[in-house]
Formats: sequence, structure tokens, C-alpha cells
Amino acid sequence: MAIRYPNKITKSVQNINYAHRGLLLENMINQSNNYYLEKDIALIFKKPTPIRVVKVNFENNYKKINKAYFEAPSTLDYNGLYKGHYLEFEAKETKNKTSFPLKNIHPHQKEHIKKVILHGGICFLIIMIKNETYLLSGNDYLAFLENNLSKSIKYDYIKSKGFLIETNIKVQCDYLKVIDKIYFKEN
Amino acid sequence: MAIRYPNKITKSVQNINYAHRGLLLENMINQSNNYYLEKDIALIFKKPTPIRVVKVNFENNYKKINKAYFEAPSTLDYNGLYKGHYLEFEAKETKNKTSFPLKNIHPHQKEHIKKVILHGGICFLIIMIKNETYLLSGNDYLAFLENNLSKSIKYDYIKSKGFLIETNIKVQCDYLKVIDKIYFKEN
Repeated sequence: MAIRYPNKITKSVQNINYAHRGLLLENMINQSNNYYLEKDIALIFKKPTPIRVVKVNFENNYKKINKAYFEAPSTLDYNGLYKGHYLEFEAKETKNKTSFPLKNIHPHQKEHIKKVILHGGICFLIIMIKNETYLLSGNDYLAFLENNLSKSIKYDYIKSKGFLIETNIKVQCDYLKVIDKIYFKEN
Repeated sequence: MAIRYPNKITKSVQNINYAHRGLLLENMINQSNNYYLEKDIALIFKKPTPIRVVKVNFENNYKKINKAYFEAPSTLDYNGLYKGHYLEFEAKETKNKTSFPLKNIHPHQKEHIKKVILHGGICFLIIMIKNETYLLSGNDYLAFLENNLSKSIKYDYIKSKGFLIETNIKVQCDYLKVIDKIYFKEN
């Protein structure tokens, strides 16, 4: 039997789902990814939030989920393909003005970052702090954890090791420009 | 606020969630991906099923979803990283003995396959038919669609164009062995 999917978008979803994370950066990245997709620049998607479904009913031929729970992610939020390369990253914004709290990244995700690098993928974090957006390479993130017992990464570290991501008219969070610079040595 | 995730695995989930798709092939691939992951051979994950969350309540500090719907996927089920290469595929089993019904692949997914190939990724289908498992390259799948108006792919086409995937003691669906052969020209 072919499964049917409802067409109507329900208004309150995003607010509920992402309330704990902040939507500004996520929206900027989604817009950027859509632009990259439409212009055939890259193929990068946000992974669906993992959800454990417990109870399902049929309702007007649709499957309606009546009970489910969010699960902890073990990979990063976004992955995809750029210039033939595998790319994966996590995007987080913080309201903290002086540092980025490390609890934002799950321990499983830290292990995953190591593995992506080991297997030859491009792996990084996008961090929005003080209304600025930085790309911090997976290696610099891991190096920080190796050398610090702190529970947060200071803004100054992010600013010195990270790369400022620009907003332009077409792309709100043009992180691939930074990727070109640091991984493909383009200008 | 840090979000908490329930630890208990609820027994009935998989049956509900995947009842319409058949679990045998999926379980074999999951076992294989776990093996590849543990042995640091590759980093390949099944994407979570996209779910649109409508209603959430707090219950014992957990977020409990009380209303949600499944959404149609626009990418393929599995993606990841192997030997520095981006890899993406869809896995389907059919009980049909003579052909693989094309309605198993959504129109959006067909477009997505073209894009993965365009951007230099490795893209394919894994099809289980008549208790055999084949890897059919994205290009051979697209070529079939170009040249046929049929609603299904005949078993003979899959057998002649596809590559038989073996089961061995360690890996139930050893598709990377086929990938080595056809993409990396290894034996």
C-alpha cells in the first residue's frame, strides 16, 4: 500500500520543535542551503530530528502519530555534498556574550566529529555569538577540548581560530565561501 | 534549558513505523552499517524519517509529542562517507517476483539522485527481489527511466545491470564490496 502524506503545513510546528534552540541561525542556514541547491552549488540538507514513534493511528487515510519522543542526535544536524566532497556540520547560536557553552554539543557528536575527519570528510561548527557568525573547524574544536577543561569556549578563541561568515544579498549565511578559502584554498 | 531524552526503548516502534516497507533489508543494512562504523570502514547512517510535529507536552521533564505526521522524503534514506567520498542510497525490498515497482521511489527522490551524481557523489539503489539483493547504480536507474515508460523495472534488468550483494559472516549486506569494485576498481 502506498502511504499518503498530508499537504497542509501546520503553523505551530517550528515554534514547538525548535523553541529550545533559537531559530535565527537555523533559518539563515536553511535559506543559504536552498540557494546553494537551486543554483546547483551544493547539496546540503538538515537532517530530520530523530523521533521515536510509539503510537500511530490512521485518520482520513493518513498515519497520525499520537505518541512519540524526541531522541538525542548522534550525528550533526547538516550534511551533504560540495564539489565532490562530504561535508557535515552543526549550527548553534548562543545568547551568551562571552562564551559558547559546550553542553550545546552532545558527547556522541564529539566522537562523530572525530570520525568524519578520520574518513576524509569536511567537518565544522557554525556558531552565532554576539550577532556574529563563525565557522570553527572540527579540528580546532577538538583541539580546544583536548587542551581545556572549561565548560565553554571563550568568544576570543572563536574569533581568533574561527572564520567570520558573511551575509550577502543572496546568501544569508555564506559558509561555503569560508569552506572555499580554508579547504579549497580559493579566494 | 538542556533538553532531556528518555532512555527506555519502546518495543512497538519499529513495527509501526516500518510496517509498510518491510524490515528484512533494512535490518541487514543497519547491521552492515554498524559493522562498517565499528571497524572504521565507513560512516553511513539511515536518516531519521521526517516527521512534522504538531503538538508537544512536557511530561516528567520529557517532551512528549502528542500529535505529528510522517512527511514524504525528498532525499534518499541513507547517506554517509566512505574513503573520503560522499555516498547516498535508497534501499527497498519487493515481494513481487518479476519486477520492482517504481512507485517505491518518489519523484523528488529521482531528481535528488540526478543532483547527487551531478555534484560528484556516489548514488545507488539497493533492491531486494526474489531473496537476492542487488546494487543498481543511480545512472543505470536513471537510464532505465529515460528509456522506458514502464511502471516497474523487470527482474532481468536488475540482474543484468545490477551487482549482486553478498552476505558474509560479518556483514549481512556487504554493499561496500560492490562499491569498491565498480567505483574504486578494486577486486
